[in-house]
Amino acid sequence: MRLATLRTGTGTGTGTGTGTGTGTRTETSPGTVAVRVDGDSAVAIDGVADVGELLQQPDWRTTAERASGRTLPVADADWAPVVPHPSKIVCVGLNYRTHILEMGRELPSAPTLFAKYPEALIGPYDPIVLPEYAAHAVDWEAELAVVLGASARRLSPEQAQTAIAGYSVLNDVTMRDYQYRTPEWFQGKTFEATTPFGPVLVTPDEHQLGTELTSVVDGETMQSATTDDLVFGPAALISYISQIVTLNPGDVIATGTPGGVGHARKPPRYLGDGMRLTTAVAGIGSITSTVIVER
Amino acid sequence: MRLATLRTGTGTGTGTGTGTGTGTRTETSPGTVAVRVDGDSAVAIDGVADVGELLQQPDWRTTAERASGRTLPVADADWAPVVPHPSKIVCVGLNYRTHILEMGRELPSAPTLFAKYPEALIGPYDPIVLPEYAAHAVDWEAELAVVLGASARRLSPEQAQTAIAGYSVLNDVTMRDYQYRTPEWFQGKTFEATTPFGPVLVTPDEHQLGTELTSVVDGETMQSATTDDLVFGPAALISYISQIVTLNPGDVIATGTPGGVGHARKPPRYLGDGMRLTTAVAGIGSITSTVIVER
Repeated sequence: MRLATLRTGTGTGTGTGTGTGTGTRTETSPGTVAVRVDGDSAVAIDGVADVGELLQQPDWRTTAERASGRTLPVADADWAPVVPHPSKIVCVGLNYRTHILEMGRELPSAPTLFAKYPEALIGPYDPIVLPEYAAHAVDWEAELAVVLGASARRLSPEQAQTAIAGYSVLNDVTMRDYQYRTPEWFQGKTFEATTPFGPVLVTPDEHQLGTELTSVVDGETMQSATTDDLVFGPAALISYISQIVTLNPGDVIATGTPGGVGHARKPPRYLGDGMRLTTAVAGIGSITSTVIVER
Repeated sequence: MRLATLRTGTGTGTGTGTGTGTGTRTETSPGTVAVRVDGDSAVAIDGVADVGELLQQPDWRTTAERASGRTLPVADADWAPVVPHPSKIVCVGLNYRTHILEMGRELPSAPTLFAKYPEALIGPYDPIVLPEYAAHAVDWEAELAVVLGASARRLSPEQAQTAIAGYSVLNDVTMRDYQYRTPEWFQGKTFEATTPFGPVLVTPDEHQLGTELTSVVDGETMQSATTDDLVFGPAALISYISQIVTLNPGDVIATGTPGGVGHARKPPRYLGDGMRLTTAVAGIGSITSTVIVER
């Protein structure tokens, strides 16, 4: 099954909740709808605003399979980030085996983790719009994304496997100057509206790891690897992270990038105004962003 | 004005929202209530579950000032984290001037930032309950916390000053073994339910920086500094972060810790089962947690 979040316009929803505790909630509801993608058609999962909201339903698979809302051609769709508002995006560094070995490093015994805020996400075909001050060392990092379909707390790798909702494509676009300005990478990784994510989530029954991951800049292939070359695979990552903190349905793990980033080239190469970045995982899909530098 | 979030029991609220977009939302409402603390009394801000929810109202100051709900003695209160579910907790490293200089380092030109997830937060008097595997190198980091009272995006330091809702006390309790296991500190910083935060938020009209910040372990003072010794003060931090990503009302900035942490002592000292950690900022309040190691 393939799932996506499509934009339907803009809207605001307000809800008031009461319970045995106290509570009044106001919530903005984006103008989006979760859909099941069947070939060339997207079938609305009525009443569900996005894939993240869908995944919070324990019976989300059944809900999605049975959905029979209005249908629109995929070609006309306006794609949002597949999970627009995950409670966590956990990113992984130094996780492609071949690249680590070719750099002459030892394979790590624990995954390197850092965070990215949901405000960083954009839809899979949205432009990456940058202020001039953030546009000096913008680099690509093609990644396989794993999305949680259940909450995860202190799971074994075997248990973690069943908590995977599916796989998607993400580019952890990075401002290298900010990343290396201080000892922590975080500030170069969480720039507002710079991380394309989508187009679809593919459930594990329809996708196995080991297909090609690529990033292409203006037609030139910059990164190419297979997604089973990970030192820490999806279940191992979920298990490890779940020893530290609870992962919630809809949370995203960006599993790391292979060699071929611009910063490591001699001379370094970066993304600039008007350049096109395409990231793909064979069997999942392809996402493309054009860089726009604000003047 | 002093604000807090108190537990009132447990409850669940459900809200359904409709708009011109699509949207149905279900939301759990914790059994908490936002209060204004007037001396020895806490006055309920009726219909507002916590201080984070309060701060999302543009007129939160007026709402809080006018609140006249039920009153209970502070002595009987069950304190939750002052903001239980911030959308972001941005932590700052290497930010106390005296400590940096005594270590022989140069003052940094940019703040070192990393993230902590809201699941790390506990109430100001809750125990720090640790699994055995996380209990080998548990350290204290007393910090002044700054809470946003408005959203912040590309603000000048002057504008950022007006976005401050107030100040609170936080201890960025850190698992040093996890912190230094990989190049990134994050995994040692975001352990579930290990960061005490509270007891109150004090608005800037009632608190100026420059009072004493301390951490005390089993009666022994381990850290002592004044909160105006920051290299990057609250407004500078908000301004800097807001160039990278939008800060939302209720978001928290943990402004960094001074010298005196256990890991830097010779020999190193850590928190163990049964030990009591007290963190205080004079003029704001004092928070105390007992460490419990699960066997």
